Amino acid sequence: MNILKPLRKRVLGRVHVPAVTLAHGGGGKAMKDLIDDVFVSAFAPLDAHVLEDQARFDLAALARHGDRLAFTTDAFVVDPLFFPGGDIGKLAVCGTINDLAVGGALPLYLSCAVVIEEGTKIELLRQVAMSMAETARSAGVSIVTGDTKVVQRGACDKVFITTTGIGVIPQNVSLGIEGVRPGDGILVNGLLGDHGASILCARGDLALDTEIESDCAALHELIGALLRAAPGTRCIRDATRGGIATVLNEMAEASGVSIDIDEAAIPLRDEVRGFCEILGLDPLYLANEGKIVMAVPPEEIDAALSTLRAHPLGAGAAIVGRAGSGEAGRVTMQTFFGGRRIVDMLVGEQLPRIC
Amino acid sequence: MNILKPLRKRVLGRVHVPAVTLAHGGGGKAMKDLIDDVFVSAFAPLDAHVLEDQARFDLAALARHGDRLAFTTDAFVVDPLFFPGGDIGKLAVCGTINDLAVGGALPLYLSCAVVIEEGTKIELLRQVAMSMAETARSAGVSIVTGDTKVVQRGACDKVFITTTGIGVIPQNVSLGIEGVRPGDGILVNGLLGDHGASILCARGDLALDTEIESDCAALHELIGALLRAAPGTRCIRDATRGGIATVLNEMAEASGVSIDIDEAAIPLRDEVRGFCEILGLDPLYLANEGKIVMAVPPEEIDAALSTLRAHPLGAGAAIVGRAGSGEAGRVTMQTFFGGRRIVDMLVGEQLPRIC
Repeated sequence: MNILKPLRKRVLGRVHVPAVTLAHGGGGKAMKDLIDDVFVSAFAPLDAHVLEDQARFDLAALARHGDRLAFTTDAFVVDPLFFPGGDIGKLAVCGTINDLAVGGALPLYLSCAVVIEEGTKIELLRQVAMSMAETARSAGVSIVTGDTKVVQRGACDKVFITTTGIGVIPQNVSLGIEGVRPGDGILVNGLLGDHGASILCARGDLALDTEIESDCAALHELIGALLRAAPGTRCIRDATRGGIATVLNEMAEASGVSIDIDEAAIPLRDEVRGFCEILGLDPLYLANEGKIVMAVPPEEIDAALSTLRAHPLGAGAAIVGRAGSGEAGRVTMQTFFGGRRIVDMLVGEQLPRIC
Repeated sequence: MNILKPLRKRVLGRVHVPAVTLAHGGGGKAMKDLIDDVFVSAFAPLDAHVLEDQARFDLAALARHGDRLAFTTDAFVVDPLFFPGGDIGKLAVCGTINDLAVGGALPLYLSCAVVIEEGTKIELLRQVAMSMAETARSAGVSIVTGDTKVVQRGACDKVFITTTGIGVIPQNVSLGIEGVRPGDGILVNGLLGDHGASILCARGDLALDTEIESDCAALHELIGALLRAAPGTRCIRDATRGGIATVLNEMAEASGVSIDIDEAAIPLRDEVRGFCEILGLDPLYLANEGKIVMAVPPEEIDAALSTLRAHPLGAGAAIVGRAGSGEAGRVTMQTFFGGRRIVDMLVGEQLPRIC
């Protein structure tokens, strides 16, 4: 049953209790009121009647944006729900927008499925829904359908959100992780590790004073600008869980190239560098929610870099390395101290529930 | 990050531990192995290399099925995970297929996002993934992209799954909950309440001997046959959470008609009837996972009924009532005892975590 099902009703329901009860998941009146009051009023305050139980789009209208439909999903279980620079709602919208955008798609529509623990405050849900709505609106994306489930106390930790996105890839865009070639520049759009560091600080187990903000942001406009300036860009990946180390390994392995990065070129905030030193974390594995790694052919590196730097979300862009014809799949780093070490995929756990 | 991201790798990884650890959610090597071993090997055993991080479909190919794209999502938190007649995997695939099909869409592609509790047995996950894969395959639908998250022990109850589906609506199909007209027949495709009763029995809190099987099934072929035989069908709804009572109220309210049903005409298994009597439950509110409610114009009722009955999933089809021009939005029932009572939307909670 879709959360937006009751939209055709004449009057939106209201919730009259402070917290979610199991009745809010039962499929009846209480659920309808919860959905109306919290989600529908946030996602579609003005134009609720255009929304449908099942969202429907004209295929001919979609085809005006390009020739391929892109489809991607992500579950968000971040803990805590609110952190400096964002919250689970903003994260759930930006994360799926970015998953569409890194494939070259114009993000258009999102669905949203929410699992809620009994006892969760209605006010908290309202904040999350408003955050999703605002993030989607400012990104030009619509949340068009959804679902809510309520589980008994203790059966989930407050709120989990799954967003699924559809977008359209323009005809001339062709990005693929297997397309990196020796000589390509490896670029990032700014400071790394802020999201991972922000979440870890926000958990409050560490007596650290710095408040690092998550970099959580929707990157589709930045990516659009990049692809106009450097249309030969081979591939783009968002460096979320597993950090840039994981993305670089995936690129190197899929493309059959080596990648060598330069530790001195990696943009890191001083606080994040210090934070990693204190905790023994490697910033290459820290999660980001507003950072992409790009492989760009040599002749377009300058155009790519200046375009990224001209955008607010790419001001800190940098060339961090090069693809080469060394051992296929091997990622290495020139260290500060003049050595060279292998950068492997993350083995084991870095931080649970980072997104 | 999508669960199918590592598909381009040459060798699928293997999980070498019996249960899921937090490392399996970290974005690195362990996560890749879990996804490869459990999900990729189930969803795409033969042709893994065709799958992409982000699923992509040719819009022109989609347009050969119809003119509108349908998009719907559902979270599944059913407890227990395995029950007579199904499991959370089968339910998650059938539920989203049905949500597409009741809108007239041909279901084509699904995404799947899984939240897993630390400590969940790998073997259990494998069973769930195999069940999803088999259900999808026999329904002619592909699971094309996904995501996994792992949360610490106690932060979710074993496994939650969100499936999102896309399908295409043929040009001549136009179904809408606001289309019911006075005189329309209200049909169902068989015995009601089996899913709700099955789950409640499977929880084992009741010392009941009967083992009622869930009716969990993919109904798109049945619906396709119905729409060919009765193309004037006004609307179709799956009677999941909230049962047929909720669906009938939604239809009556959205269409501005009254609906009157006949208690004697409602198909119920004796075990379910007895079960409801013992527990004081109203079968009209019991959840179904393989039952639809249809409003069919008078001249097509016979064709609809015989078509439904000719299909294995519609053998028990029945006309349960009529739409009328009484009070708009009002649903009533002629009882066994000759009375007439109002059938309201479900108020409060019936059964938590039924789907």
